[in-house]
Amino acid sequence: MSKEITAREQDYSQWYNDIILKAGLADYSAVRGCMVIKPYGFALWENMRDQLDKRFKETGHQNAYFPLFIPKSFLSKEAAHVEGFAKECAVVTHYRLKNDPDGGGIIVDPEAKLEEELIIRPTSETIIWNTYKTWIQSYRDLPLLVNQWANVVRWEMRTRLFLRTTEFLWQEGHTAHATSQEAIDETMKILDIYAEFAEEWMAMPVIKGVKSINERFAGAVDTYCIEALMQDGKALQSGTSHFLGQNFAKAFDVKFSDKENKLEYVWATSWGVSTRLIGALVMAHSDDDGLVLPPKLAPIQVVIIPIYKGEEQKKIIDEKIIPVIDDFKALNISVKYDYDDSRRPGWKFAEYELKGVPVRIAIGLRDLENNVAEVSRRDNKTKELVSLDGLANTVMVLLGDIQKNIYQKAKNYRDAHITNADTWDEFVKLLDEKGGFISAHWDGTPETEEKIKELSKATIRCIPLHNKKEEGKCILTGNQSHERVLFARAY
Amino acid sequence: MSKEITAREQDYSQWYNDIILKAGLADYSAVRGCMVIKPYGFALWENMRDQLDKRFKETGHQNAYFPLFIPKSFLSKEAAHVEGFAKECAVVTHYRLKNDPDGGGIIVDPEAKLEEELIIRPTSETIIWNTYKTWIQSYRDLPLLVNQWANVVRWEMRTRLFLRTTEFLWQEGHTAHATSQEAIDETMKILDIYAEFAEEWMAMPVIKGVKSINERFAGAVDTYCIEALMQDGKALQSGTSHFLGQNFAKAFDVKFSDKENKLEYVWATSWGVSTRLIGALVMAHSDDDGLVLPPKLAPIQVVIIPIYKGEEQKKIIDEKIIPVIDDFKALNISVKYDYDDSRRPGWKFAEYELKGVPVRIAIGLRDLENNVAEVSRRDNKTKELVSLDGLANTVMVLLGDIQKNIYQKAKNYRDAHITNADTWDEFVKLLDEKGGFISAHWDGTPETEEKIKELSKATIRCIPLHNKKEEGKCILTGNQSHERVLFARAY
Repeated sequence: MSKEITAREQDYSQWYNDIILKAGLADYSAVRGCMVIKPYGFALWENMRDQLDKRFKETGHQNAYFPLFIPKSFLSKEAAHVEGFAKECAVVTHYRLKNDPDGGGIIVDPEAKLEEELIIRPTSETIIWNTYKTWIQSYRDLPLLVNQWANVVRWEMRTRLFLRTTEFLWQEGHTAHATSQEAIDETMKILDIYAEFAEEWMAMPVIKGVKSINERFAGAVDTYCIEALMQDGKALQSGTSHFLGQNFAKAFDVKFSDKENKLEYVWATSWGVSTRLIGALVMAHSDDDGLVLPPKLAPIQVVIIPIYKGEEQKKIIDEKIIPVIDDFKALNISVKYDYDDSRRPGWKFAEYELKGVPVRIAIGLRDLENNVAEVSRRDNKTKELVSLDGLANTVMVLLGDIQKNIYQKAKNYRDAHITNADTWDEFVKLLDEKGGFISAHWDGTPETEEKIKELSKATIRCIPLHNKKEEGKCILTGNQSHERVLFARAY
Repeated sequence: MSKEITAREQDYSQWYNDIILKAGLADYSAVRGCMVIKPYGFALWENMRDQLDKRFKETGHQNAYFPLFIPKSFLSKEAAHVEGFAKECAVVTHYRLKNDPDGGGIIVDPEAKLEEELIIRPTSETIIWNTYKTWIQSYRDLPLLVNQWANVVRWEMRTRLFLRTTEFLWQEGHTAHATSQEAIDETMKILDIYAEFAEEWMAMPVIKGVKSINERFAGAVDTYCIEALMQDGKALQSGTSHFLGQNFAKAFDVKFSDKENKLEYVWATSWGVSTRLIGALVMAHSDDDGLVLPPKLAPIQVVIIPIYKGEEQKKIIDEKIIPVIDDFKALNISVKYDYDDSRRPGWKFAEYELKGVPVRIAIGLRDLENNVAEVSRRDNKTKELVSLDGLANTVMVLLGDIQKNIYQKAKNYRDAHITNADTWDEFVKLLDEKGGFISAHWDGTPETEEKIKELSKATIRCIPLHNKKEEGKCILTGNQSHERVLFARAY
């Protein structure tokens, strides 16, 4: 079969690419490091986006849109920020092409050179804070709770579909507050939204925590994150929420007059999740037969495949099934009735399995006689005959079960892969043989973290929120430590 | 009052900018020709986008996402296309910044020069047809009905908020078909969707037609359009739908095998509307007091302003009004209860008038005693006392009336501004003194159209669909003509 995918055991990385390409989520493009998000992948992204957008709006955020271009000088205004992004910036230097007078075809017109180069936004703090300067004068203008859905570009050296692409889609929230505490509260509120979305919608358990200095966002005072575990034991950062302090307000001179008419710098947050989440979703649940999608996000929740020969038989099935489809729609279940007669049922079974459709219903004439249909679950591959009476309601309950089951399965795996290590040898052995999160003592210095990364390729994924205090010795240096932190090899 | 806007009579162009800036739709940015779409403007765009997106999906289209970057060589593959876009391309030449070793700050790293320059998409036919080459092999892969919501960049010399900006947001549909007729049918289907959206949602009457050769999209066989008339008598192209023939299929060598296994080039369409529609909406309906928004697209359809002094009075109003708000919500009416006590009612009245909120409800204690509220319409400025019983239902009917009324008003104006001209003098006089569409004979040649444009600044907006055949003489050359076409000065 042409659509066969590589087994995880054989080559995890190839398995991942096979699923994405063969389930029709995305495709490579002619532009280095950029992908094409295909309709099925984009429908998944739309479902994720709509759900997140709803939560942002419910919590008082509004969408806006800021320019794609950032003047080069803006990027330099916050020292840590430019340090973090300068090495991966796409730069626009000219604004016109022309016909080569020497017959060399279409060339860049050397006379159309920009006075100041423009950077394609890798993130928008600088252009947004330059704008906020004109929007914020008084405490009355605060808080300012803005989000944007946009494309951004980071010129990564090694790219992978969804996980790390030169251009990607994301949302970036940028909020402005009158006090430090309000900004911190906002940072945590968003972290909670991200975690809830990951767990309840993506069925993907996550650990909330704060990043070490080395892994902090360039320009942040603190970076909070949600970290998930993939099936190969590697961690994946799935969302970040930054408390920016007054760094950007100072860089762009954004002050407000408080109720006492005193001028103060504004406090800031920024936060984002991206199309990387699709990569996380693929790796969290899928198996060697293809995608496994959580019902709450699946573009097609139920596929109905009629088994018939000839128009006469199809008509009989149609008569029975079309009212059932209406029942599904009335329950807001996304259903596809695939009666395409240029494909055989067996081909369709494999195709929808590959695409991760949570529930497949097959129905033939004999089933009709017995007033039943064959209902198959994608997650655990079980199937059973179910009465056509109240089928939509039965399936609705089933979709809920599947959502819970794939979450529980991922959680069991994750929980079984958080392991304490107390010595360096144990640490390395766990990383090599078991993978997952390693909970270990660390002396708290960036130098030690860097050294651990060099030696083991593991980084500190986060210091979990509400982390238990516990005295111990750093696994590398033996220096005093007051808490364990979570290490892992990561995407 | 600081938010006063210039009168149309005094300076139409300033009036337009004042409304956009002061109603909070958009703001200038630090990047030449790019604007910031502010939350209120973006909410309007979201409403437009959601409605269009729904119609695209209902007619079988799926969303996808293609790269922002187009290799320079792709643009050159379709001759007319590159001719049309080369002069306004933003070009990425480098992918890294670095610290100037000579202390000049952050500079573009000369060693990070791209082998082939990348163009920021001005439109995506080329990158998409290069992709379709791998997606289309057989008639089974057709039709391919894809749309994308994206940002595009065209380096325009003169820019205006919403109407013509360097970067803008739009949707671009790109479809592939097995036959010429299917592609033409698709082109017309989309034109109908655009026209229906403009008239029923934007309350903006449009004329459907086909463009002359001079105004055709670069690379199209035929460009169809909807043309609207603004209050200053200038026309505004509001959407275009292109029949591309086999031009892009040939440029990118995209063939399919038909049912007889014969290889054929694929037939194509592309079509788009953009944030320019917001400019059209502003100019079609607004008045000297600010925006007038059609209820179907207004981010806030109803604002309720309590008139009170002190917490005690507010509580009494709250008790009565909060259930009414629930009634509104149950009817899916977007309502804002503005009880902010840092602003006086008069300030709020002016603010929501400026923002074009279709219905304002003011309610004070005396109204409560009489079980009424004062309901004001933004479109014709009338107000009346309305019973609180069934208020939401009353307002729902009113919103429908307002939608119809502003459409009718715009249509009356438009219909009164389509005028026949039979001589050159009449033509020029009409343009200068009355404006609007001038229906006139033209000899059908691009040269004459170009000459007319030079002499009068008017262009052929379209040859209306189902145009009446009528013999006559070209207003400029006196040559034979078989139908009148619509001229106007345009945005």
